[in-house]
Amino acid sequence: MAERIYLDNASTTFPKPPCVPEAVCRYMTQEGTNVGRGDYSSAYDVEDMVFETRELLCKTLGGQDPSQVVFTRNVTEALNLVLKGFLRAGDHVVVTSMEHNAVMRPLAQLRSAGVTFTRVTCAQDGSLSPADVEATITPETRLVVTTHASNVCGTALPVGNVAKICRRHGVRYVVDCAQTAGVLDVDASGWGVDAVCFTGHKGLLGPQGIGGAVFCGDFASQVDAIVAGGTGSSSDLEQMPAFMPDALEAGTPNLPGIAGLNASLKWLRERGIDSLRTHELGLCGLLLEGLEPLEAAGHVRIVGKRSLQGRTGLVSIQTPGHELAEVAHRLDSEFGIQTRVGLHCAPSAHKTFGTFPTGTIRFSFGWANAEAEVSQAIKALKELLRS
Amino acid sequence: MAERIYLDNASTTFPKPPCVPEAVCRYMTQEGTNVGRGDYSSAYDVEDMVFETRELLCKTLGGQDPSQVVFTRNVTEALNLVLKGFLRAGDHVVVTSMEHNAVMRPLAQLRSAGVTFTRVTCAQDGSLSPADVEATITPETRLVVTTHASNVCGTALPVGNVAKICRRHGVRYVVDCAQTAGVLDVDASGWGVDAVCFTGHKGLLGPQGIGGAVFCGDFASQVDAIVAGGTGSSSDLEQMPAFMPDALEAGTPNLPGIAGLNASLKWLRERGIDSLRTHELGLCGLLLEGLEPLEAAGHVRIVGKRSLQGRTGLVSIQTPGHELAEVAHRLDSEFGIQTRVGLHCAPSAHKTFGTFPTGTIRFSFGWANAEAEVSQAIKALKELLRS
Repeated sequence: MAERIYLDNASTTFPKPPCVPEAVCRYMTQEGTNVGRGDYSSAYDVEDMVFETRELLCKTLGGQDPSQVVFTRNVTEALNLVLKGFLRAGDHVVVTSMEHNAVMRPLAQLRSAGVTFTRVTCAQDGSLSPADVEATITPETRLVVTTHASNVCGTALPVGNVAKICRRHGVRYVVDCAQTAGVLDVDASGWGVDAVCFTGHKGLLGPQGIGGAVFCGDFASQVDAIVAGGTGSSSDLEQMPAFMPDALEAGTPNLPGIAGLNASLKWLRERGIDSLRTHELGLCGLLLEGLEPLEAAGHVRIVGKRSLQGRTGLVSIQTPGHELAEVAHRLDSEFGIQTRVGLHCAPSAHKTFGTFPTGTIRFSFGWANAEAEVSQAIKALKELLRS
Repeated sequence: MAERIYLDNASTTFPKPPCVPEAVCRYMTQEGTNVGRGDYSSAYDVEDMVFETRELLCKTLGGQDPSQVVFTRNVTEALNLVLKGFLRAGDHVVVTSMEHNAVMRPLAQLRSAGVTFTRVTCAQDGSLSPADVEATITPETRLVVTTHASNVCGTALPVGNVAKICRRHGVRYVVDCAQTAGVLDVDASGWGVDAVCFTGHKGLLGPQGIGGAVFCGDFASQVDAIVAGGTGSSSDLEQMPAFMPDALEAGTPNLPGIAGLNASLKWLRERGIDSLRTHELGLCGLLLEGLEPLEAAGHVRIVGKRSLQGRTGLVSIQTPGHELAEVAHRLDSEFGIQTRVGLHCAPSAHKTFGTFPTGTIRFSFGWANAEAEVSQAIKALKELLRS
């Protein structure tokens, strides 16, 4: 079998910069102690590392106060925290048809608690009209949640404009940056949103198991912890402390994960998110170009827009005349090309694109991918689809 | 400063067996892919590793079905899952006065949802009378939650007997094994409990950031996910799948953490939990013995029982005449001895022992501690407390 060509970076980035596993290993073998729970020197060193990571996240995602950065396992938990911690019976929520099940499944659960939602349908290219969001806001609307960019087609949504509408109507706005943190410019306070939710293991290049939310203004004070417990602070009280970040973080954190994220954030800032994005969008452009003849011949249908403006570095296709899962399987087994096939946990996006329930094959690029790998993917697709 | 003597293993064990950071690093550098979300070979390898870890947890904690093992960030999240996912308005819960804030703080939150609880007071040595539990069960009682062993004094509770009472009354029983998994015998199905909650980074010797619950019988089907979202399964549905473990696990898991726990569980089974316990209780006995003259002279008050039967390897003391935090600080700064001082997130246990609100200094032992370290701790305490 050919060497592995990893094109599933929108699921999790691989490889990580070497400094990331190194930092995880160094923490585990040399520090290892818990945080906020010991009265000895190495416990304080770990505390400093965790605080510095909150600062780095503020710098990277436009937060203003490191204490308003809350760590969770992943973006899914961060979205559940915001949704379940904030919404109450009678509240109405606005979402888009690009949302991941990380937003839709908690909302489905919240229905039984008396929370309703309206889904704004995006266009065929994945774009969103802010006016459509405004039109769905009712007096009961307390929250708008949108993804920053679709995980199916890569199209970015106009979050800055949606934020202006939300502010005008006094509605909270939370952005799911699963696909964009470390890839596009994320600027929570510049946008004027109430929180951005992120995961550490995709564009931020950290390990799986660490994610979180960057809160702005007073929003965090309106959110109850979904996981309550020991914080190593105010231990005389059987209530969660009122101060951040302890109010929303309980139990021993994923410290090796935070150590890895600390290293990846520094690496990202050194390399520059702009230059990584240019690289990944370049690969995306090459693939789109290479797919054109296949599309013209009817072997491929490209989902989403063709332009490289306002998107992330991923391309979703269907393969009319060839079973999608079979094509993905052969890409892997015969060419070593690893992609992701199916609905990508976003059924409603596929309904928008007319690709439900089959889904798409998604090619997603990372910092370590090379142009030659894109060429090999195009060559492989030609071989598989023209036969 | 003297070499570091780490005696805070009840907070987190350190060092980990070398195979643990090695497994984490190997996963991050060689596998790295996501689970249940890719259609390529390395994604299946990771899936196998995760399933094997569920099997190892069943073997170690007395589970019967690997699909009933749910991963969370830590034991705190596992307890929140069970409490918030199961309890409804009008339900009554029985707990003991040894519970950690990981149990008490979620129960405090649930009060506003109409859940009430009764706290059974343990004896001065930390022990629990099962009859006292039975006496508090009312027709509204749906759940009993107890720790397996106090994190303040180490005393184990008679969970097997409590389980019998719960079964007789048709009440669910969940055991918090934070302090005992990998240390005492934990046997979920042998005891006849409904779930045991564990954390990976204490006695199980894995990394921080991974924990979970082992469910028995049909209990999991009565519990709603507190974190809902993508599972890589049934992605056409905007509801959580009904089957386990997907029903209670959403979003990308802490895969490096699971890889580390996989390695530590194998190491534990090879070494034998019995022999590790013998080692740690031996050190505990040495410390108790060494403290006797200090106690006789009134410099130390030992909290909890003296016997080595039915306990974990930790010792809590107060230092009458010397400020506790100051003693802990000097143990670290002058002798390199790292302990934990304060309430250990268990205020109600300290109220039981009459050590609230000052707390105790806790010495807790691990596999890598040596007798010489205990001698140094005793020597240091003599020097500090007799001056």
